[in-house]
Amino acid sequence: MSKERLIFLPLGGAGEIGMNTYVYGWGAPGKERLIVADLGVTFPNMDTSPGVNLIFADIDWLVERADRIEGIFITHAHEDHVGAIGHLWSRLRAPVYARAFTGHHARRKMEEQGHDSENVQIVEKWPETVTAGPFKVGFAPISHSIPEASALIIETPAGRVLHTGDFKLDATPLVGEPFVEEFWKDLGDQGIHALVCDSTNVFSPLPGRSEATVGPEITKLVQDAPGMFVATTFASNVARVKTLAEAGQAAGRSICLLGRAMRRMIEASALTGVLTDFPTTISPEEAEDIPRQNLMLLVTGSQGERRAASAGLSRGKYLGLELAEGDTFLFSSKTIPGNERGVISIMNAMAEKGVDVFDDSASIYHVSGHANRPDLERMHELIRPRMVIPMHGEYRHLREHARLAQSSNFASVIAPNGSMVDLTGDAPDVVEYIEAGRTYLDGKVHIGAMDGVVRDRIRMALNGHVLVTLILEDNEPLGDPWVELSGLPETGVSKAPLTDVLEEDLSQLIGRSKRKTLADDDDLEDDIRRAVRKSADDEIGRKPEVTVVISRLS
Amino acid sequence: MSKERLIFLPLGGAGEIGMNTYVYGWGAPGKERLIVADLGVTFPNMDTSPGVNLIFADIDWLVERADRIEGIFITHAHEDHVGAIGHLWSRLRAPVYARAFTGHHARRKMEEQGHDSENVQIVEKWPETVTAGPFKVGFAPISHSIPEASALIIETPAGRVLHTGDFKLDATPLVGEPFVEEFWKDLGDQGIHALVCDSTNVFSPLPGRSEATVGPEITKLVQDAPGMFVATTFASNVARVKTLAEAGQAAGRSICLLGRAMRRMIEASALTGVLTDFPTTISPEEAEDIPRQNLMLLVTGSQGERRAASAGLSRGKYLGLELAEGDTFLFSSKTIPGNERGVISIMNAMAEKGVDVFDDSASIYHVSGHANRPDLERMHELIRPRMVIPMHGEYRHLREHARLAQSSNFASVIAPNGSMVDLTGDAPDVVEYIEAGRTYLDGKVHIGAMDGVVRDRIRMALNGHVLVTLILEDNEPLGDPWVELSGLPETGVSKAPLTDVLEEDLSQLIGRSKRKTLADDDDLEDDIRRAVRKSADDEIGRKPEVTVVISRLS
Repeated sequence: MSKERLIFLPLGGAGEIGMNTYVYGWGAPGKERLIVADLGVTFPNMDTSPGVNLIFADIDWLVERADRIEGIFITHAHEDHVGAIGHLWSRLRAPVYARAFTGHHARRKMEEQGHDSENVQIVEKWPETVTAGPFKVGFAPISHSIPEASALIIETPAGRVLHTGDFKLDATPLVGEPFVEEFWKDLGDQGIHALVCDSTNVFSPLPGRSEATVGPEITKLVQDAPGMFVATTFASNVARVKTLAEAGQAAGRSICLLGRAMRRMIEASALTGVLTDFPTTISPEEAEDIPRQNLMLLVTGSQGERRAASAGLSRGKYLGLELAEGDTFLFSSKTIPGNERGVISIMNAMAEKGVDVFDDSASIYHVSGHANRPDLERMHELIRPRMVIPMHGEYRHLREHARLAQSSNFASVIAPNGSMVDLTGDAPDVVEYIEAGRTYLDGKVHIGAMDGVVRDRIRMALNGHVLVTLILEDNEPLGDPWVELSGLPETGVSKAPLTDVLEEDLSQLIGRSKRKTLADDDDLEDDIRRAVRKSADDEIGRKPEVTVVISRLS
Repeated sequence: MSKERLIFLPLGGAGEIGMNTYVYGWGAPGKERLIVADLGVTFPNMDTSPGVNLIFADIDWLVERADRIEGIFITHAHEDHVGAIGHLWSRLRAPVYARAFTGHHARRKMEEQGHDSENVQIVEKWPETVTAGPFKVGFAPISHSIPEASALIIETPAGRVLHTGDFKLDATPLVGEPFVEEFWKDLGDQGIHALVCDSTNVFSPLPGRSEATVGPEITKLVQDAPGMFVATTFASNVARVKTLAEAGQAAGRSICLLGRAMRRMIEASALTGVLTDFPTTISPEEAEDIPRQNLMLLVTGSQGERRAASAGLSRGKYLGLELAEGDTFLFSSKTIPGNERGVISIMNAMAEKGVDVFDDSASIYHVSGHANRPDLERMHELIRPRMVIPMHGEYRHLREHARLAQSSNFASVIAPNGSMVDLTGDAPDVVEYIEAGRTYLDGKVHIGAMDGVVRDRIRMALNGHVLVTLILEDNEPLGDPWVELSGLPETGVSKAPLTDVLEEDLSQLIGRSKRKTLADDDDLEDDIRRAVRKSADDEIGRKPEVTVVISRLS
């Protein structure tokens, strides 16, 4: 029998920001008992995944080994850590563990997909632990931009692993537990075998700033605002929402929450005890009667999402409320790369209404939830692990973080999605590569990223689509071929209608086709497709996608 | 007869960054003689304009008045100022004026579209002027991120207008003419009626930095680089290309230019005399034999363009050259909003090759070509115009710039595309709104942004496409309806093939259709479309685009 080993396998989140899905295993090779850390999503975009609803890690490897999974542990309630739990759980069917606030969200996600929420078990914080096969797992409170974020302390036969989840070093996070250096130093003193560590901000050279630094600046801005004050941030950043609300309250403003996520998150925070003293809020109906200079709206849509409250307000009335000349709008948030166009378009729509828009460009109305480069170095020092395994980052972040760790003489390795790393010894060792990938939730259907469905959509968007129908009777054309265009100009260089040009060219093609070709669907389709693409290229300078339907009567 | 007036009409570039197209006119209302300042393009994206090649301002208003156009004046050779000249000139047919370097590019663009390059006349710099109807126009050298950028000094019967074009206050631009405060102050002393002014960087709070500050930092980076050094920037930023090349030369490296735009721009600069002492370059073939630590590549593709040299190098060999572990790649450029994903993906591909990637995040390897907020204030002070008209900016930039001008007691107005502004008096006055918009170059065809062509592409990309064919003979179905899918999953919740489900549902629909419906193409198509969308929604949670082809035999 082979020697037992400790393995680490990222299936999502290593080689990208988002979609976090990590596996740990202990046992003889091929027989390891497994635990999963986080089951997150990432979001689609028009360039690479038009029409897709959500993106998950490909968990086929895990599904084939579902009988060996001892538990699923969720570090915190951000979508890129918990968002897939409802969608993927039925293929894994292992118990899910989380602390109260995170568990509240995980349970809702399970219910929304028709699963029993009791499959999510609520765990107290460290030193309580959950025994999961050969592992004991505890949730150690760590500061981040959402309440109750936790690092996982994973006791394994090879030693302790510290899986940080997302974190920052914030001694004053306002909501949620502070980062207490003594605790982590103490943990380091007890010995950590492997530090599996957030890498998101490894390229940010200055120490991170505390959530507490944001409040005074926002308070000044709110107090100076002449009209209605509207602010957006991630709803899950409960500390920020509270800071905003308190700034409003201090300026004598009534607070109104707009957007389902915003209301839901504050309710969940109160329900689970992470938020105890949020200012009183009023409903949108009540807000309509409050003078503008006495009103603050806290709204969803910091990333420019078309259906969220901020986009709605930029277009016109939203739940009876409307922006006007002299109002102030604050993006107390960072724009995630790829969302710039959406956010900018909202800013301009608001400017057209005479609204003063503020964002994070001066770096005073927002702080990041992730440890910056010096903070990562501090974490390494506090924990002094045998090895540092970077996670939560694109390839460049993982590489930079591994170099940073190595520069302080910690063993390290770059392990992007699909790299199975043997953590048993003194240094990490990539022992196998698993096929890692993505799956899409597309409407109600799960499809593979490589199935070709989305590729065909992108091609139609880039090239347009020509449909050709042809009826044959006993291998003789019955009438002329018929052409329909989608997403193509009606006329080209000849100024004649493109459908006419294509139909004429196809008629000629069919007229001179041999009987053998006319009798063979594949040959005929190929000829028609080629002819359409050539004629279209001549006419409009574009080779469209072509669908050919041949109907045969006999 | 109405009183003669001076009008200003932005058709592109006011309400967006790019696509600059401005009109000035003098004369009785409706009979003004016109000049055009710049004819630029903007670039498409997958979100709003998939498959489109280039985007132009809608110039219908100008075309209807083409007989009144006295001249087209191009301020500088950036694509967003000169890129449309070849594509739109045939609809305007007025003489084009530019200085030598800009004119060189304009002439090439004319030739590429089959127009006589002699329609572009080369003009010496101010104080030379061109008489164009009631106007006299001079090209005053001004610093920017391309050689020979010029502000237009437009003498009008209502007074002088200063149309800045893109500019920054750079006393040491390295290539091209410096910004000489005395000249502009002098011009101000002579009296400027209206300052029509770049607004791009109005939200940048610190004074802009000179091109000369970049060289020392880049030189340090190049000298410390152990392997091959590769750098990208906009090819038209000839000063930067020269700075990079000189840093390479100082470090004992041979310089190789990769990418057509890069070679073409350096050639044009030498040919037109704006660049006199560029280091000797070697060909890609020669570069293959140079040791890596003695080689520098200057490459195209700073915006992540898929076909440019930087993307090529990130994927593998490009013209025989290849990146390797220990090489350095520098983005000496800013990523334009919307291009982030492409640039980031190149950075990660390079990191996977072990290449160290540097970009502008530390603000030391790039400076902007536009005047920042304090620089705009300085320009206002130097010129002391009667009014400031902000251009080159999204709505929010125009608004902020107008406020900035007003705060120094200059009259101002926000005039987005389509606003006809009467500049005759002491303050600007918007007198009319013209239908402003965009047109697309789509393959070989010009289409309107609102024609529905691109809308249909976006819908196919988001919703997928179903094609239904049905043959009827004497209003009776001949066989069953036939369904083809594009960009849709093959199976849905029932696990049966989606085509089968749809065909079965359509067969039933047609089976129970009344003879009257079967006889009416429109009714039948509506019924089929509705049935397909409903069945697809049930099966796959998505309502696709539907094309119905009904063939009738009789």
